[in-house]
Order: sequence, then C-alpha cells, then structure tokens
Amino acid sequence: MTVTSGIPATMRAAVLHGPGQLSVEERPVPAPGPGEVLVRVEAVGTCGSDVHYYRHGRIGDFVVREPLVLGHEAAGTVVACGPGADARRMGQRVSIEPGTPCGSCGECRPGRYNLCPDMRFLATPPVDGAFCEYLAVHQDFAHEVPDSLTVEEAALLEPLSVAVWACRKARVAPGDRVLITGAGPIGLVAAQTARAYGAREVLVTDVVPHRLELARATGATAVDVSRTPLSAADYTPTVLLECSGVPAVSGEAIRTVGRAGRVVLIGMGGAEVPLPVSRLQNYELEVTGTFRYAHTWPAATALVESGAVRLDSLVSHGYGLAEAESALTVATHDATAVKAVIYPQR
Amino acid sequence: MTVTSGIPATMRAAVLHGPGQLSVEERPVPAPGPGEVLVRVEAVGTCGSDVHYYRHGRIGDFVVREPLVLGHEAAGTVVACGPGADARRMGQRVSIEPGTPCGSCGECRPGRYNLCPDMRFLATPPVDGAFCEYLAVHQDFAHEVPDSLTVEEAALLEPLSVAVWACRKARVAPGDRVLITGAGPIGLVAAQTARAYGAREVLVTDVVPHRLELARATGATAVDVSRTPLSAADYTPTVLLECSGVPAVSGEAIRTVGRAGRVVLIGMGGAEVPLPVSRLQNYELEVTGTFRYAHTWPAATALVESGAVRLDSLVSHGYGLAEAESALTVATHDATAVKAVIYPQR
Amino acid sequence: MTVTSGIPATMRAAVLHGPGQLSVEERPVPAPGPGEVLVRVEAVGTCGSDVHYYRHGRIGDFVVREPLVLGHEAAGTVVACGPGADARRMGQRVSIEPGTPCGSCGECRPGRYNLCPDMRFLATPPVDGAFCEYLAVHQDFAHEVPDSLTVEEAALLEPLSVAVWACRKARVAPGDRVLITGAGPIGLVAAQTARAYGAREVLVTDVVPHRLELARATGATAVDVSRTPLSAADYTPTVLLECSGVPAVSGEAIRTVGRAGRVVLIGMGGAEVPLPVSRLQNYELEVTGTFRYAHTWPAATALVESGAVRLDSLVSHGYGLAEAESALTVATHDATAVKAVIYPQR
Amino acid sequence: MTVTSGIPATMRAAVLHGPGQLSVEERPVPAPGPGEVLVRVEAVGTCGSDVHYYRHGRIGDFVVREPLVLGHEAAGTVVACGPGADARRMGQRVSIEPGTPCGSCGECRPGRYNLCPDMRFLATPPVDGAFCEYLAVHQDFAHEVPDSLTVEEAALLEPLSVAVWACRKARVAPGDRVLITGAGPIGLVAAQTARAYGAREVLVTDVVPHRLELARATGATAVDVSRTPLSAADYTPTVLLECSGVPAVSGEAIRTVGRAGRVVLIGMGGAEVPLPVSRLQNYELEVTGTFRYAHTWPAATALVESGAVRLDSLVSHGYGLAEAESALTVATHDATAVKAVIYPQR
Repeated sequence: MTVTSGIPATMRAAVLHGPGQLSVEERPVPAPGPGEVLVRVEAVGTCGSDVHYYRHGRIGDFVVREPLVLGHEAAGTVVACGPGADARRMGQRVSIEPGTPCGSCGECRPGRYNLCPDMRFLATPPVDGAFCEYLAVHQDFAHEVPDSLTVEEAALLEPLSVAVWACRKARVAPGDRVLITGAGPIGLVAAQTARAYGAREVLVTDVVPHRLELARATGATAVDVSRTPLSAADYTPTVLLECSGVPAVSGEAIRTVGRAGRVVLIGMGGAEVPLPVSRLQNYELEVTGTFRYAHTWPAATALVESGAVRLDSLVSHGYGLAEAESALTVATHDATAVKAVIYPQR
Repeated sequence: MTVTSGIPATMRAAVLHGPGQLSVEERPVPAPGPGEVLVRVEAVGTCGSDVHYYRHGRIGDFVVREPLVLGHEAAGTVVACGPGADARRMGQRVSIEPGTPCGSCGECRPGRYNLCPDMRFLATPPVDGAFCEYLAVHQDFAHEVPDSLTVEEAALLEPLSVAVWACRKARVAPGDRVLITGAGPIGLVAAQTARAYGAREVLVTDVVPHRLELARATGATAVDVSRTPLSAADYTPTVLLECSGVPAVSGEAIRTVGRAGRVVLIGMGGAEVPLPVSRLQNYELEVTGTFRYAHTWPAATALVESGAVRLDSLVSHGYGLAEAESALTVATHDATAVKAVIYPQR
Repeated sequence: MTVTSGIPATMRAAVLHGPGQLSVEERPVPAPGPGEVLVRVEAVGTCGSDVHYYRHGRIGDFVVREPLVLGHEAAGTVVACGPGADARRMGQRVSIEPGTPCGSCGECRPGRYNLCPDMRFLATPPVDGAFCEYLAVHQDFAHEVPDSLTVEEAALLEPLSVAVWACRKARVAPGDRVLITGAGPIGLVAAQTARAYGAREVLVTDVVPHRLELARATGATAVDVSRTPLSAADYTPTVLLECSGVPAVSGEAIRTVGRAGRVVLIGMGGAEVPLPVSRLQNYELEVTGTFRYAHTWPAATALVESGAVRLDSLVSHGYGLAEAESALTVATHDATAVKAVIYPQR
Repeated sequence: MTVTSGIPATMRAAVLHGPGQLSVEERPVPAPGPGEVLVRVEAVGTCGSDVHYYRHGRIGDFVVREPLVLGHEAAGTVVACGPGADARRMGQRVSIEPGTPCGSCGECRPGRYNLCPDMRFLATPPVDGAFCEYLAVHQDFAHEVPDSLTVEEAALLEPLSVAVWACRKARVAPGDRVLITGAGPIGLVAAQTARAYGAREVLVTDVVPHRLELARATGATAVDVSRTPLSAADYTPTVLLECSGVPAVSGEAIRTVGRAGRVVLIGMGGAEVPLPVSRLQNYELEVTGTFRYAHTWPAATALVESGAVRLDSLVSHGYGLAEAESALTVATHDATAVKAVIYPQR
C-alpha cells in the first residue's frame, strides 16, 4: 500500500443514530482495500436524501438500523492506494462517484451498473457515507478532476450527474423545448444541463420566488405555478424533466407534453402515482425514470470545465464537520438555502 | 377515372344511428377522389371499438353525433381509380390501412403519421367506416396483398399492425421474455407477433379459459390469473405488452418487469391510471403507449405470408352485411367469440 | 392567389449555359402553384456545388444539359401565395429549404424525405435555383425566421442544416471529442454546431492558415496537417465529421477514431474510396454519410437565434446579381474567401 | 476449491509450434483461479481462424511466437470451482464464451466488453485455447446450457453469437430483406439467425454449390454468383451481412443495398478496402463491423432451444483430439466440409 505520511489513525465523522440524532465521533480511518484509494474528503454536498434520513431515519424501505454516516456528494484528494490500485493516483484531486457496483451481474456486464442489485452506495444503509475526513473508494469511482474545478464543483458533479443522466434518457438536443418541474438543486442543475445539451428553450416551474429567481439566472423561463397554472403557460414541451416528485405536478406537466414527447421522472413521488395514461397513449409519450446514473462523470466534468454548467452558484451555505447538523437543517428556516456544503477538514 | 364496368350507383351500408341502433341502408357508392382507389369490400373484422360505439354511441371524446358506418379492418379488391391514382392498381387485392394522415404536418413529415392531428380514420366520427360494399381510400393506404393471403387475413392485417407496432416500440428481439396481459384478439395476435420477433418466451394472462386455450395454441405459456396471481408465476419479463386496459392488471404486471424492461400500454384503460412509479424509477423501466401504428403493413403482410403469424385462427364467426348487428353482439352471449368477420358482398 | 401588388412580370436571373458561361437574363417571374408561396429572394449563399457546376458543367451524374439557374442557400420574403397556401404567410421573412420531396414514397412516409428518389432540389439539373429575384417554393419548405436573424443568417441556415444533420447522425453530445477534417464553410459550421450539441472538444484540421484561424475563432483546436500529421496530434475522437472529401484525409482520420466511435462522411470524395476496414471492424466504428438533411430548419434556426452558432462570421464577400460570376470565382484568387453571398435585389 | 474426484494431474493438448506443426502433448491440467471454474472439454468446433493460424502461424498482427493451443468454440462440464466461484456450478453443462475482458476499462464499464483492449481470448496468442481436455475459465463466461442442447450445439453457440451480434448491429426485424454474402459457417448461421430475427427474406450468395445447397436448406434463396452476378438478382436488401471478407464482393454487395440500409462487415478482408462511398453517402447507408460479440449467449441459447436455429446441421466432420490436424485440414480436400468438431475426451 502506498501512503502519504501523516495519515492519522482516527478521524471525525458525523454519525446519525436515529431521526434527528446526529453526533460527531472519532472513528478509525479506513484502510483502502484491493483496488481502492483513500481520499481525504474536502467538500461534501448535502442532498435531500441526507436531510430525509436525518429527519425520518429512513427512505422508503431503506431504514437506518445501525449508526450511519451520511453524505454522498464528495470530493477530495487521494492520499493512499490499496493493493492493486494505481500508484499514479496519489495526490490526485478527485470527485467521488458514490456507488460501487458488483461489476459482473446481468446489469453491470451490459453497462447498466446503476441498476446493479448489489450496489454499495454511500450513505445508504448499511453503507457509511462521506460526512467524515477520509473515505476509501474503488479507484474506478474516484474520478480525477482538472485543476480548473473548485472542490465544491468537484463535489457537485454528483447532482450534475443526475441531470446528465436525465438529459441522456430524454435525448435532449438542439431544437428541444424542455419543461422542468421543480427548481430545487436538481431542477436548477437540470435547467443548465438541458441548455448545455442544446435545448432551444427551458421552462422551469416552482412556487418559491427565490428558486424561480435562480432558475431565471440560468437563462430559463421561470413560471410561478402558485400564481399561473402551467396549462396557462402555452408551452408545449418536447421533453419533461420532472424534478418535484409531487404527483399532482407530474400529472399536470405530462398533460402539456407534445406528441412523441419524452418524460423523465427524476423526483421521487411515492410507490404508486396516478398518471395521465390516455395522454401517454394517444401522444405516444415515452416515460421513464432515473435511478442515479451511469458513466456520467467524464461528461459532467467537461460541462463544468467548459463553463457550460456553473455549479458554484448553487452553493448557498458552508459548514465545518462539527456543524453538520446545521447543514442538514438550514433549509427549514432559510428560504435562500439551495445547497449546503460541508468541509470535513475544517 | 378508370373504372370496372358494373359498379352500381348505390350500395348497402350498416349505419349506426345511436347506441344499439343499427340499420342497413342504401347509400351512394363513393367516387374515388384524387389519388384514391375504390375498393369493393370483401371482408371486415369487427373490433372492440366498433362494439363500444354500437353499445355506447361514443368512445371518450369521440361521440357519434351523425349516423356513422362502423368497421375499420377491411380488405377487398380495387375496382376503380380516381384522378392521379395509379391505373395498375386496378384489380389488385388490397388490405386497407384505415387512417389517412394529412401528410405534411409536424408529425407526418418526420414519419409519425399515426400522430397526425388531422388524421381521418375509418369508423371514427365523423368518418364513415367499412361495413359497406364499397370504400374509397387513398392508394397509398390500400396495400397490395399477395395471393397466398385469404381475404380474412388481409382484413386482419389491421389488428396485426397494432401488434407489430407494439413489438417495435418494445424492441422485442431474441432473448426477450414477453408478458402479455389480456388474451383478447390483440393479445392473441401480439403473442404470435412477439414470437415472430424472436422472443424466447411469451406468457399470456387472462381469466377466460377459452382465450387462455387459444393463447396456449400459439405456443405461449398461459396463466389464468383468476386462479394464480401473476406474482406467483415467477416470471420476470423483459417486455410487457399490456392488452387488457384494466388498471389493476397494468399495475400488477408492471411490478413484475425486470430492470431496464420495456412496457407498452396497448389496452385503453381510462384517462388517469395509478402506475407503480417507484418501480418505474428504481428499475428505469421504459413505458410508452401505442396509438394505432405507422409503416406496419409491409412487415405485417410478410409475417402472414411466411406463416410466422396465423390470423385465420382468430376468426370465430362470419356474417353477411345484413347480420352486422349479430357480429357486434355475438361476444355478449358466446364465450368462444374472438373475431367476428363481416362479408359485405354476401 | 394572394399577391402583393407590384410584383413584376419578369425578373433577372443568373443563368449557366455551360462551363464558365454565366449570363444575367430576363425571365418570367414564376407563378406559385398549389400550396406554394412566391418568395422575393434577398440573399443567396454560394456553395461549392454551385462553383463546381459553374466550372465543370456537371457534378458526377448530374449534367447541365439545359440552361440552369444556380443557387440553393436562399432567404427572402413571401410576396404571394398560390392556391391552397396559407395566406398568413404573406409578408413573412423566410429561409428556403431547397429540396421538395414527393411526400408519399417509401422514403418520405417514414420521414427520410432527403432520400426521396423524386426530390426536386434547387440548382440541381433540371431544377432552376435561386440566383434570381423571385422563387416559388412549397410553403412547407419556406421556413419562417425570427426577426433577430439577419437575411444572411436566414440564407445560411442551409449549410447549417448540413452540420445539424451530421451531428444528429453522429449523436454528438456532451462528453464527445469531435474531429472535423476540412475547415471550409461546412467544416467551420460543423465546428460550431458540434460545440452547440455539447461536444467537450472540437479539433479541426486543414492546410490553409486563414481557415485554421477561422476554426480557432470558433473555439476549436486547429491543426495544420501540412505541418503536423494528424496522427501526431494525440487526439482520439469519439466522433469524426469528415468535411474534406479527400480520400487520404478520410482514411487517416478514421484511423484515429476511438472504439465504438462514429464517423460521418460529409465531404464528397468519389464513387469508390479505400477505407481502413480492419479498423472499422476491430473498433466497431459506425460509419455513415449524409445526403443533404431532413427536419433540420427548426433546430438550425434556434441555434442561430440563441447565439450558439454564429453564421454572419462566415460571410466574407457580397455581390449583386449582376456580379454572380464574381461570387463564383472569388475563391480562386482570394484566400480569405469563405462564403460569398449574392443579393438578388441589388 | 471444490473438485470432482478423479481430475488427473495432466491432460492432452493439441499444440501448434509453427505453421503446419501441430503435436499432441501432455500438459498440466490448469487449476481454476479466483472466480474460475474448470471445464472438462467435450466438444470444440474448428474455426477459420484456427485453420489460418495452423497454416500461416499468424493472423495479421497476432503472431504465434510461443507454442499455442488452438480452439475457441468449446463446450463441456464443470468439474471444479476455483476460490470464490459458485459451487452450484459443479456438474453443469456449459458453453464457453472464449473471451474474458478486464471488466473495468472504458469499454467494459459501458458494456462493450468485446472491445476491451485487455481482452484475453482463447487461441489468440499468447492465450491457449480449447483443443485440450480441461480448461479453466471465469464462471461468468461459462454459460449454463439446457439439457435439450447437444454438446455440439453448446460448442457452436460461439459462431451463433457472431451472427446474433451482427443481427443486433443491423437491427434485423420483420419486414427486412437480408443479403448474406458468403455461405461459410458464419454465413449459414447468419442466414438462420436473420430468419429468427424475423427477416422476411434472406438471400445468400456463394460460388460453391454444396454451400449454396446448405443455404437453401435453411430456407434462404441461394444465388451462385459465379453464374449470375448479384446485380442481376433484382434484390434490394435493407440489410447486408457481409461474411465473405472478399473486397470485391463487399463492394458489389453494398451497391445493391437500399436507401437507409444497414451494412455489417463480418468477414475480414484486409486493412484497407475500397468501398462505394458515394453510394454510402447518397443512400445514407449505415456501415459497421463486428468484433466478436457481447452479451449474446442467452439469446443464442434460446434460439437453439426453441428450434429457431439448427446448429447440428453445420457439423460435417468429427475427430478425436489425436486427429486435430485432420480437423484443421479437412476443408482443403473435402468440398462438403463445413464445420469439423473435435471431441477432446475421445
């Protein structure tokens, strides 16, 4: 194993013990296994799923039964290499793809590794996440980032990957009119990403003025659907990227999509949702959902490097590891919160 | 205009005046317009939509306000050519594709003519259908059939087209495991068509023993879901062709589809239907619907000609035009009814 | 027929009588036929094919046997409507798509109208082109342009369409590395278009310093292959857009493309060309060619409207109709010539 | 390691020492490594590449520098499991997929493992092949076969995979007219496979009467191009599967393909081959090649199991391991030779 001298034996980690119960604790620094690298974590975004685990101790069937470290939008620097890992990775600045698939199942072999039933995904029980100082990950999923990216941008390649994956599923291209429902972090990144894929027009809906303002700043048309119903917007999208997860919003939005349009359901909205099936049939809409992403880091990195997508503008708050709880709760009392980033080395 | 001598001035047609009100009347034989041919109609299948119009006087937003001739699964012989139509078509045996699109709109130009908003479709108000002796149709939509096809097979290329279109949407190919829910005429044709597209296994569900028997005769595995729930069948399809239109059936069936599976909703089941959206997302299912078909006649014709699909076996009852009402009602009292064919020249 | 008062009976047209024999003549202003509009032509780009006809009197099997008006990159204003054309088109600024397909053949119905064997294409014998004051075209192929486009941009939507079609064939998207061989007008537009489709990197090769400079100005990396062989560039493209038509260039370029890469042959390079077939096989490259374009005007228009593609920068020279010959010959003595535009109303 | 008692320490293998120099030798039975199974080899097909190595000691850049065991179309029974391999595989009848990719490179992760630059492929220097009694392979590439398949069929799933891969690349489906040039083993299997993918018509060309007879027996139309030039056949295919590897044949065949047709170059015909590029462009043909196959065994197995493809009919000769040289030379003196199979346990 190749190591940088000076790696401590223990580190701090923000550990969730139950709904609303987070404590910062000392844990052993993990030893990188075969093919793994050890990453010193320098920035981690907080995601809606982290907040949901923090509040409810579960997301659907995923229940926090053992203490769990949250966080899966992480970037840092390679400080050690496990057996078989490429020693040239030492010192590299990396963005971490948080899921490690088995590599050989019926989903992985054909390249759909995001659907691997044996996926180990950071901050999804029972796999610990990135709200900590060091993380061991397989070298294939610690993606090198160019110097021009900030550490926050490197961390936020994860939510950007969600948007890239959705745009690929929707085959967004020049000529497309895109509707994005929901101007949370994913919707805001998706608006920029759709534009980077060449979309001629992007319309974003939400009910929060601050978020609509941010959408507008990406060059999108923003519609406050608390004032104007979507149906009044006289907009017939070729592509819908549903980011709200609100069933009524999905239904109304699907009803605006033009013939042969493509619909990608990104926001999670429950096990069973009423959908306008006769519209889907009569217009031959293609509807699919996204489950994380696959093969997105190179494209996402290039989009940030070229300036086509600006991720820094999403970062609204920053915290040290000791303030992890603040990062997870800021959205409840600050309407301008978009993306809180935790800096574990602070 | 090129004509066969002996075309009469008037013909008989079975006309729907309101729910349950059908009468056989004399009507003028239509004159073929520019690019049209006049077809002597020799066989017409009855479709569930014909039965629905007969019983209820409407299907959704399509309301029978004026007297309407039903029937859209038709075959016959070209007996006259309108101005500009190809005189070599005279005497050809043809299968009629019942929809004529505008040809130049934003759906037609890219080849999605089935989605043309100005489509004129037989037996869809206010366009008269084929339960009559003569029909004028554009020559492009009167498809020549080889001698080896019977007139019934030529007529039933229409429902076969529904199945071909669905198999294309689902990209059925060797290796696929297909689930077909509903063993009505469409489900039964789809079972054969899926096999002709190379599917390794086809499982058909229904609750009517006779239909399940017919499904079995196509080489499919048939499951009586009134006895065995689908979930007990231990079958993970890669493709679902939903032909029942029953929301509960759709939902249960979608829940069995494997990761990255494809779902085509063919049966009509209402404006809004609850769908298992989290399954759709977590498994990244591709869901779409079919609205009729496009560009299917050549492939459908070839499938029948090669023997890969057997349509004759679907014909359970035959009637003269005077008995059109019997054709539309036989299914209510005869459980062995699958497809009733009307022979207008009788 | 709806007309603007003041349309003259005759107009000037630049007519090719044989190699190098061009004269400006009076001709009748055409009357728009059914579904056609009459366009007052305000700008027409000169294309390499115009120059080739001018010099050689033929392109391959297309031979100028009768006097022929050249020019097919045209824009102008609708000044009259033929029978059945939409009167609301009157006064619209339009960009002309120069090919009118039959609309009902086996290529047109599925949407591949560019492959229509009965295509009538401007300035392709025996169809006269746009180096004249008025042109009658089917309304579906006179595309409205927004006010923000200049008339030159409206005319150059035609070469942009070539690039859009090529990028679609190549499925250019974020993450792609694109190689463009040849920095003529098509190569230069393709460089911008590939970028607008999200390409992470675009490398353009040529041997003319001025053209390489223009390529560089689009944000591409430009390589002078008269100094540095392409193989020395250490560039493994995922996509090759071959715009030179030079067989040796195609072959060398294909050998640099990465596994599963896509190759689009745009430049015409002769009936038979040696290609590196073992590379094509071992790397499973997808190779195709483009023949004009289909369904590209809306996307092309949007790309210019948004600023993603700048067409004005291509226009190097402008001429009145009387100077048409100068437009066709400027490239022979002025190395800075890229695109000469003719203004027929001058 | 789980083993069947009775595995000997050494085995016989047919070893190539140089062009025409083959000897049967004793070698150690390999020990299955991590994730590997040991297969008792029961049948191995001889492939043109085996014959080529035998005669010339090389194929292109692949040179036999060390003694090499040939053979890569193998089937047998699992008799031992290496560490980490699934013990339930013991005793299974398996068909061996002869290439083992690295699993984590830029080709493997997206599912294109056949393009893996670090592929280890049986009987390709320096990797020994299957003309021996025992073979250790990764369990993922030892595919279970159903009892209904003979051991010869299990072995010949390898060439069938070539055909399945080609039909996928060409998107063969009902309605397609397929042209297959070359009625060697691959062409003959491709003819059946194209039919199983639903092709409406398959035309096979060759110059050897016996092979044409075999093609005819698969239901294809067979044309002896030594008597009738292909261009006289009045056949416009939608798909060309080029299996001859003869440049002149490829060129002539491509010139018959219809607009928007698909061409797959399977036969190897040299580094550089003149192709009819203007046809490719004017008709927008899609041309690609195949390099082995990926993800084909399940579909191939199902095609044989259902009877859609008959592989037994290809086996023309059988030999024990001691007669390996006869298997590699039979084609030179027996015009009825199609596929010689070696039975290593004899």
